[in-house]
Amino acid sequence: MGVKIIEQTESAYSYPLLIKNLLTNSLVRSPDQEIIYRDEMRYTYRDFHRRVAQLANGLKGLGVKQGDTVAVMDYDSHRYLECYFAVPMMGAVLHTVHIRLSPEQILYTINHAEDDVILVNSELVPLLEPIYNKIKTVKKIILIKETDEAPKTAIKFETDYETLVSGSKQTYDFPDFDENARATTFYTSGTTGDPKGVYFSHRQIVMHTFGLMTGLCAYHSQAIMTSKDVYMPLTPMFHVHAWGMPYLFTMLGARQVYPGRYEPAMILKLVVTEKVTFSHCVPTIIHMLVNSPVIKTVDLSTWKVVIGGSALPRGLCEAAMGAKINLYSAYGMSETCPLLTVAHIKPHMESWDEDRQIDIRCKTGLPIPLVDIEIIDPMGDPVAHDGVQTGEVVARSPWLTQGYLKNPEKSEELWQGGWLHTGDVGNIDTEGYLKITDRVKDVIKTGGEWVSSLELEDIASRHPAVSEAAAIGIADEKWGERPIVLIVLKEIYKGKDLEAEIKQAFIDQHDQGNLPKYGIPDKIIFVDAIAKTGVGKLDKKVIRGQYK
Amino acid sequence: MGVKIIEQTESAYSYPLLIKNLLTNSLVRSPDQEIIYRDEMRYTYRDFHRRVAQLANGLKGLGVKQGDTVAVMDYDSHRYLECYFAVPMMGAVLHTVHIRLSPEQILYTINHAEDDVILVNSELVPLLEPIYNKIKTVKKIILIKETDEAPKTAIKFETDYETLVSGSKQTYDFPDFDENARATTFYTSGTTGDPKGVYFSHRQIVMHTFGLMTGLCAYHSQAIMTSKDVYMPLTPMFHVHAWGMPYLFTMLGARQVYPGRYEPAMILKLVVTEKVTFSHCVPTIIHMLVNSPVIKTVDLSTWKVVIGGSALPRGLCEAAMGAKINLYSAYGMSETCPLLTVAHIKPHMESWDEDRQIDIRCKTGLPIPLVDIEIIDPMGDPVAHDGVQTGEVVARSPWLTQGYLKNPEKSEELWQGGWLHTGDVGNIDTEGYLKITDRVKDVIKTGGEWVSSLELEDIASRHPAVSEAAAIGIADEKWGERPIVLIVLKEIYKGKDLEAEIKQAFIDQHDQGNLPKYGIPDKIIFVDAIAKTGVGKLDKKVIRGQYK
Repeated sequence: MGVKIIEQTESAYSYPLLIKNLLTNSLVRSPDQEIIYRDEMRYTYRDFHRRVAQLANGLKGLGVKQGDTVAVMDYDSHRYLECYFAVPMMGAVLHTVHIRLSPEQILYTINHAEDDVILVNSELVPLLEPIYNKIKTVKKIILIKETDEAPKTAIKFETDYETLVSGSKQTYDFPDFDENARATTFYTSGTTGDPKGVYFSHRQIVMHTFGLMTGLCAYHSQAIMTSKDVYMPLTPMFHVHAWGMPYLFTMLGARQVYPGRYEPAMILKLVVTEKVTFSHCVPTIIHMLVNSPVIKTVDLSTWKVVIGGSALPRGLCEAAMGAKINLYSAYGMSETCPLLTVAHIKPHMESWDEDRQIDIRCKTGLPIPLVDIEIIDPMGDPVAHDGVQTGEVVARSPWLTQGYLKNPEKSEELWQGGWLHTGDVGNIDTEGYLKITDRVKDVIKTGGEWVSSLELEDIASRHPAVSEAAAIGIADEKWGERPIVLIVLKEIYKGKDLEAEIKQAFIDQHDQGNLPKYGIPDKIIFVDAIAKTGVGKLDKKVIRGQYK
Repeated sequence: MGVKIIEQTESAYSYPLLIKNLLTNSLVRSPDQEIIYRDEMRYTYRDFHRRVAQLANGLKGLGVKQGDTVAVMDYDSHRYLECYFAVPMMGAVLHTVHIRLSPEQILYTINHAEDDVILVNSELVPLLEPIYNKIKTVKKIILIKETDEAPKTAIKFETDYETLVSGSKQTYDFPDFDENARATTFYTSGTTGDPKGVYFSHRQIVMHTFGLMTGLCAYHSQAIMTSKDVYMPLTPMFHVHAWGMPYLFTMLGARQVYPGRYEPAMILKLVVTEKVTFSHCVPTIIHMLVNSPVIKTVDLSTWKVVIGGSALPRGLCEAAMGAKINLYSAYGMSETCPLLTVAHIKPHMESWDEDRQIDIRCKTGLPIPLVDIEIIDPMGDPVAHDGVQTGEVVARSPWLTQGYLKNPEKSEELWQGGWLHTGDVGNIDTEGYLKITDRVKDVIKTGGEWVSSLELEDIASRHPAVSEAAAIGIADEKWGERPIVLIVLKEIYKGKDLEAEIKQAFIDQHDQGNLPKYGIPDKIIFVDAIAKTGVGKLDKKVIRGQYK
């Protein structure tokens, strides 16, 4: 480790909140702890620290300087983690390219972010190939070789990642600078118009790391993670810094496993062989795993998974718990870095029966410290926390994006009256739990009333034959809109006529007082698949287009 | 709780790190959790939140405004906790008066801090009485009645605390302001010259709270506390905000117990009846408890105690562990808010035998995240982390005092080259553990070599007959200084001649290569008591005066 030079150019006592300060401790605490990439590679934090310095020196050698933007196109890997630290620590901006966008959209984001350098995995070169000639500001492209085989492409690579890293000096004097300097940028997979860029400063990422830790670790009744956990992301690293978890687990010096591309067999294999105990993903991934034939052959009882990105349907929660996976619901979005709430069980709820506890687990959760959440009505006035009155969810916290990059108009829409407007509809109950009931755009407006599309999907998902469900409003002359529900049946139920039975499930909910009459869907439509966005969420816009 | 007004005067996305933001979450999370004062009073967080608003309204009614200073003279209580929040949250500065200073020194601190209002416990009125007429800036004094009996005094009280609180409005719109605004001030019990004031901003206290949580909670091998712990301070609330713990436990909505003045019987009673699981104190308090006759009658096996303020002597650690108390060593000082290091056991040390683990437990510990520690030689150059080379301990972190209040000269001494100089001598071993070996001022300089007075005290403390030990250097013509050790024997050994036997213990350590020859003390002196400072540390300056 050597010794640090005792020198300080700024006012003596200043200590900016910089990403480099999240890294320091792990080398003192667990230099020999491992970071693992698939079943291909493992090294220690000591190696990691050295390689972060080497990567920074390599990038500096290529001309990268403070304020430049370095784009990464890779699957979840140790290399990506190296970029998470090296790039911002040298004062540059990390652009985590959304590789599930179309090549044209990727081109848009690269030009919009004004990337200077791109690091690209050889398997992702085909995404870059068709747009290569239209890239404006990029000066150098570096190949991340996944295999020894060179990709067939016209793209000229400056060097490859391993050569760049291994050939560079092993120490780097990472500078101090303003904690409000931009550290990262990435683009949301907006379903309308061009992707929008969000961005986070060093201060925001540091504060989010501590917020994340408080939310996941300090509440003992549900101490979801600690430094002893073995971490593996299952939301891509290009997406909101894999929910900021790699920063947290690196700060804690924990064992980390990076799975590359998401293949169910490899994921389950790594969970078992590397003893992964903590992951996070969208419901779709859990859905995929629960329905994988491999799942019955492995013991997942020590695996904790935080679910976010969309509401956790009760049916899926029960199925996962049946497979012994411990699911915890959390809430946030690209614009919020992302964590806002975690569905902790309060101490007095610990004695409740499982059924009531699942109700809580499926809620969006309690705000973590330093997060203020309110529900506002269309006039901008806060509504009561009674678990009934719904409105748009708005938030304040130290780690919310300041706006959309170079997009003052959308930024102004996002921030109104000093609160970030999430675009989600929800309520807060008397215990303080937030429940998201819909997207503002997806809520079904019928006869002047709001029907939550999520609530309809939730009711459908509880039927044993249902694999997936999507509720939308379709235009109706009399009512404005009327709800319909699309359903994908489980394999063994396919071809059966279950329309009446599933419709009855909605009527039952109405009879029990859980659903207003106007919420009972007009139609149940059985389909083979439901359209999804790049990150695996239901693509309501596409679905509405298909069934209008 | 009502609803918050959605309004924001500053730039939309700003979210300053303010103490009020530490408070919010507890009301959502555990409104019915209890805060307890001795065996006299208990109320819920809901009450606490209401009373914080009432106290702020009461103080506002007395004319307190942003930037004013409110002094508190009280024992550890729910009222003090209310002041911890209400005073800084309204934008005023909380001066936690060091009530173990002499009246003259207290007068100095009140005038130096330019206090506007004083809140004083009726039992502490005698401290204020003799200096009342010399107080300069104080406009109003409020009596904290411990009993119904009115204190006999010439002091004119504006009102009493309970009347002030209960008569005031139950909501307060605590404002946003600059996170760098001063939140607290208190004075160190310096043994030379006037007490020196340190001060902390809102940002610093918020960051320290998260640092504290990381240090105590996230490292699972030694997850020292969580929100499920029941907290009781045993370092006074006037001293470095009781190590910042009340801010942490309030943020987590944990159960808290405040013991008033420190009486061993009451402390042990509260530990048992209120099921206290987490405290913190200086070694002296543990020493007092371990030697209390009551200790044998109570089960303390679920009680975790963080030790700081001075090094944890091995003998005391063993004695406490014999009484089943779980001790954890931590390190910090008034100037550092205070936490810098915690003596966590690393995962690979968990399999070590108890003896080796005690070695680690007695070390000063590993820096927590966002704390940088170095050891520098007299030229200001960092020394190697080899567990051998010693020098002054210097630190950087977001939560270090910016200097001494209105004392630029001492502030400059404190901060040199961008690092806070602790005045402690120590080393860092290859595992990264800091060990404090002495105070720069207390180190014994003999024949050009340094002998650690703490090391000598540690060796003495391991002898079964020794209750307390203090090592100092006395002037010597030939060597400059020579070490001597003062010893207080345990009751049952008093009167026995153990000089040769204890001296032999030092010779044995020398023979085993643990102590240089020049470190063997010239004299062992048996005494009835050893002088201590107001916070219970050995008062080396007084001792040196007594034996020069």
